[in-house]
Formats: sequence, C-alpha cells, structure tokens
Amino acid sequence: MSAVAIGVDAGGTFVKLAAVSISGRFIKEAQVPSLPRLGPAAFVARVAREVRSWNLRPSALGLALAGDVDSDKGTLRFTPNLKGWGGFPYRAAFTRALGVRAVVENDANAAVWGAYRRLQLRSSRVVGVTLGTGVGGGLIVEGKLYRGATGSAGEVGHTVVEPGGRLCHCGARGCLEAYCGSYGILNTARELIKRPSPGLKRLCPDIAELSPAILSAAAHAGDKGARAVWERTGTWLGRGLVNLILTLNPEVVLLLGGVSRAGELLSKPVRRVLDAQPFKTPFKKLAVRLTADPTAGCLGAALLALEARG
Amino acid sequence: MSAVAIGVDAGGTFVKLAAVSISGRFIKEAQVPSLPRLGPAAFVARVAREVRSWNLRPSALGLALAGDVDSDKGTLRFTPNLKGWGGFPYRAAFTRALGVRAVVENDANAAVWGAYRRLQLRSSRVVGVTLGTGVGGGLIVEGKLYRGATGSAGEVGHTVVEPGGRLCHCGARGCLEAYCGSYGILNTARELIKRPSPGLKRLCPDIAELSPAILSAAAHAGDKGARAVWERTGTWLGRGLVNLILTLNPEVVLLLGGVSRAGELLSKPVRRVLDAQPFKTPFKKLAVRLTADPTAGCLGAALLALEARG
Repeated sequence: MSAVAIGVDAGGTFVKLAAVSISGRFIKEAQVPSLPRLGPAAFVARVAREVRSWNLRPSALGLALAGDVDSDKGTLRFTPNLKGWGGFPYRAAFTRALGVRAVVENDANAAVWGAYRRLQLRSSRVVGVTLGTGVGGGLIVEGKLYRGATGSAGEVGHTVVEPGGRLCHCGARGCLEAYCGSYGILNTARELIKRPSPGLKRLCPDIAELSPAILSAAAHAGDKGARAVWERTGTWLGRGLVNLILTLNPEVVLLLGGVSRAGELLSKPVRRVLDAQPFKTPFKKLAVRLTADPTAGCLGAALLALEARG
Repeated sequence: MSAVAIGVDAGGTFVKLAAVSISGRFIKEAQVPSLPRLGPAAFVARVAREVRSWNLRPSALGLALAGDVDSDKGTLRFTPNLKGWGGFPYRAAFTRALGVRAVVENDANAAVWGAYRRLQLRSSRVVGVTLGTGVGGGLIVEGKLYRGATGSAGEVGHTVVEPGGRLCHCGARGCLEAYCGSYGILNTARELIKRPSPGLKRLCPDIAELSPAILSAAAHAGDKGARAVWERTGTWLGRGLVNLILTLNPEVVLLLGGVSRAGELLSKPVRRVLDAQPFKTPFKKLAVRLTADPTAGCLGAALLALEARG
C-alpha cells in the first residue's frame, strides 16, 4: 500500500493540491482555479484530472472545505463562502473519480492540524485560529484534533466579542470574524481612516483596493491610521483569545492564515490583552505563535486522510 | 485494599464530607463548618477528626476547593473566596493526618465530574457550568475530565459576556460570573427592581435579604420584576454558553449549583438565545440539563481520588 495521500484545500479563488508522504513531505504540488460558480461536480472533475496527471498511486485523499462539514457523510452542511456547494457528496465523488478512500474536513481544522504537525509542537493542547477572509479555528486536545459532537468544534470565528456589534457573514452580530476576518479589518479601516495619509495613498492609490497586506506595509512605514487599525484588531483578537484560553487552558495559541503575516502589529496588542488578565495562571506560560504557512491546509488534509481508519 | 474514598467539598460556609464507594454509593455523610478565618491547617484537622470518627479505612481522599488549584502540587494557587487559604499544602496535610493518598481538585471540576457520573450520561462531550456565588465550569472531553495545561481549563465564569461591563470578583470586567453568579443576579435585581412589588415584599420584607431562591419564588408567583431578572440572567448565560458551544460542540450542557434551581426561569431564556443562532448545527441536538445536586462535588472529589493513579 502506498503511503501517499492527496491533500486538497479548496478556497474561494484557488484550490491547492499536494501529494504528501506519511512523513509530511510534499511530493507534488499544484494549484487550480476554484471556479465556484461551475459547482462542486466540476470542481471534483478538475481536481481529479490534475491528480491523475501526476501518475502517483495515492492511498487516500483529504479534502478541506470552508464551512460546516459533515465528516461522517463526507459532505458540507452549510457554507457562507461557497454558494451552491452545500449538500454535495464530496467523499463519494472523489472515491469514484480516483478510486481512493476520501475524508472531508473543515478547512481550519485541516490547517491547524497541518501546522501542528509541521511545527512538530510538543504541546498536546493547542488552540489554532485561522485568520483569512473568515476566521476559523481548530483545537488540539491531548495531541489529537478535537472535532466535537457534530464536527463543529473550534468555530471560534463566531464566538462573540462585541455583543450587539457588527453583522457577521454568518448572520449573527459581534462575532470575532466581523472584527478580525479580512473584511472585518477593512471595515475597521473604513471607520478609523477617514482621510488616508499621503503615505497610505502612495501604497494604495485606490482606497477601494485596501487589503490587510497593504495595511501591514503602511503600519510598518509608520502610518498612524494603519497602526490604529492593527491595534484595534489585535485587541478584539485578544478578547476572543481570552475566552478561549480560560475555557481550554492551552500551552500554545497558533495564529494562522494570511492576516497573521501582520506579525507583531497583531501579536503585541494580543499579548497586552492577555497579560492584563487578573486570573494569571492560564496566561503565564502560554506561547502565542504566528505562522502564515499557506500549505498547512493541504498538509493537514492529506495527513488526516492517511491517519483516518480505512 | 478498601475501595472507599472520602470526598471533601469545602465551600465558604460549610464543608461537605462523604465516604463514597467505587460505584458512587454514599456510605457516610457529614457537614462541618468551614470557619475560613481559622485557616487551612485547622480546617484539615477538623475534617480529619470527623473522618477518623467514622472508623472506615478509606484508600484515598479527594478535596474540592474553589479557586485555581495546582493538582500536581496538591495546593491552591489563588482563590478570591477563601482568603488566606492559598499556598497551603492540602494534599500533604491530608496524607499526614489520615494516612491516605489525597488529590486536590477545583470544586467546579469535581461537581461536574460527580454530576456526570451520577446522571450516567452517555455523552462523552459535556460542558458543565456551576452557578453558585461564583460561576465555574468543568469540561468532559471524550469521556474524561479535561484539565488543560495548568488545571485551569473550564474557567467559564471569567469568560467575558459584556466587554467593559460590571466589575467581577476576579478583578476583570464583564465576566459571566458578574451577571450569573448569585451576587451578579442580585446586582441585576437592584438595577431592575427599584420599587419591590407588594408580593415581593411579602416574600422578602427586608430587601437586603434578597436571594436567588426568593427571586425564583417571586417569579413563580408572577412578580414582573423578578421575572425580568431571570430573563436577563438567562440571556447573559445563553450568551456565555453560545461561545462555549461554538468552541467545544458538546452533546450536553449541564447547569449545576444552587442558582440552577430556578429551573425554566433560567433555561427558557437560555434556550431562546441558543435557538436564535444562525449557525445551527452545534445547537440543534444539544441538550441543556439542570441539576442542583448539592452532593455532586463530594461525589466527584471522591471518585476522582479513587480513579487517580496511586
């Protein structure tokens, strides 16, 4: 039996693919467009075509999808970001197309598991938060990925940090995602930066094109408005993390995803919030680590597929 | 070897004691005053005297204490409610006094474990919240009590439900405890009931003597002010539970402690908040159970002592 699995990480724009060995080595990598409008069957066909062209003999495939995944059925119950992709039998379709055992996992779970394995963390209790367009999470409990009763554990993006606050993509108000997802950060920028500085305008002539990456560059260049945006974002993130840490008492908090590239702009206000807690013990030895590893989701999906019982 | 353990649940006023068999049967029960001002050494001596008078041969003792317990060292790192009891070597003192193996556990952890075992819940993922003067919590993950990195897991009373809100006993603002602990509920009553109704006055002639139990009785008798207090309390509790449920995705939420005697006054607004969540999956099959079992802490402490590796 070949010990290679295919990891598939389907985002809103691109699908990342990799053939991964049991040790986590990438044997082959590719990217294909997601084209979500063409629907899930076309997506499966496109991925299968690419994988077949690799001429490998994978034993399993792991698919990471954004949304409420039903791992038992290998389908997606609900997703705000991939319209029309709910209900499709992904597991069965991939097994049919490629003749492999397939597992379907929430994308944040896959990314946190991939990062946990790649960093070879020795801590057995880790809270991972993925900061992208949305905010997701994955929990490592006693060295294993913890999925909860319905596979919905770690939905930290929809824990509330501002009751009655901003409307989130999920339909609730005040969710962490509405402040720390990339769209939340841009909303904060719109609130705080009424008149862009000349420096910010140079970096971003059309303010409609503003992004977390540009806000990072501007803040590093000393732009006050951009700095204030990160300060506020980190404070909200810290608030969300306080609740998670008091609940789960992890050794490590992992911040993943594109937004984590902001680095200290984000981690400093986070640390300030954590260090200000009067109940010190769970915060004292806690490490906050950032890793924007873009292939963690692929790696995690492949490893979870290899590790799953056939 | 005798399969009997002593469970000791030390509250601010009374210490509950029981001799418990491995099956969870209570062989002997007693209550002694806590007299916290006399300090922890006098407390250990008082409990040991009572236990010796039982003429049993316990193999272990489990002590449940309110606060931040260091189970490895068998001591208490920090406690807001038992002044002067921090730092004392409880485990060593009980072992010396009674010649038994001893374990020290957070009181909410012990109560949740005791209730979980007594109710013989088949769910392996349970979030327990103890509603007393303070608000604590205990997490059952894959059928085991989950303690976290420093034994501080499940500190749900200090997760924040109202950022910048009421000052909590812990020193932070907006904690769940500041709204749903008994002192929080009385503060809500003071805010909402400016002029007590004749009915409430009959139940409680001196308004300084108001308690959650009286507020329950008044609400059951139809008092509007008391009903509004429970409505608000349940809404805050629901908010705290939403964050816990999105994080841990349990099958059951257990509400324990004296305040849970309010029953539907509390569980109805809680259920309303949970049912209003747009992200439905983790809430759909979730059971919310109330059990004001006053000996759950004793039972849990004893069972944890019996189950601990000698």
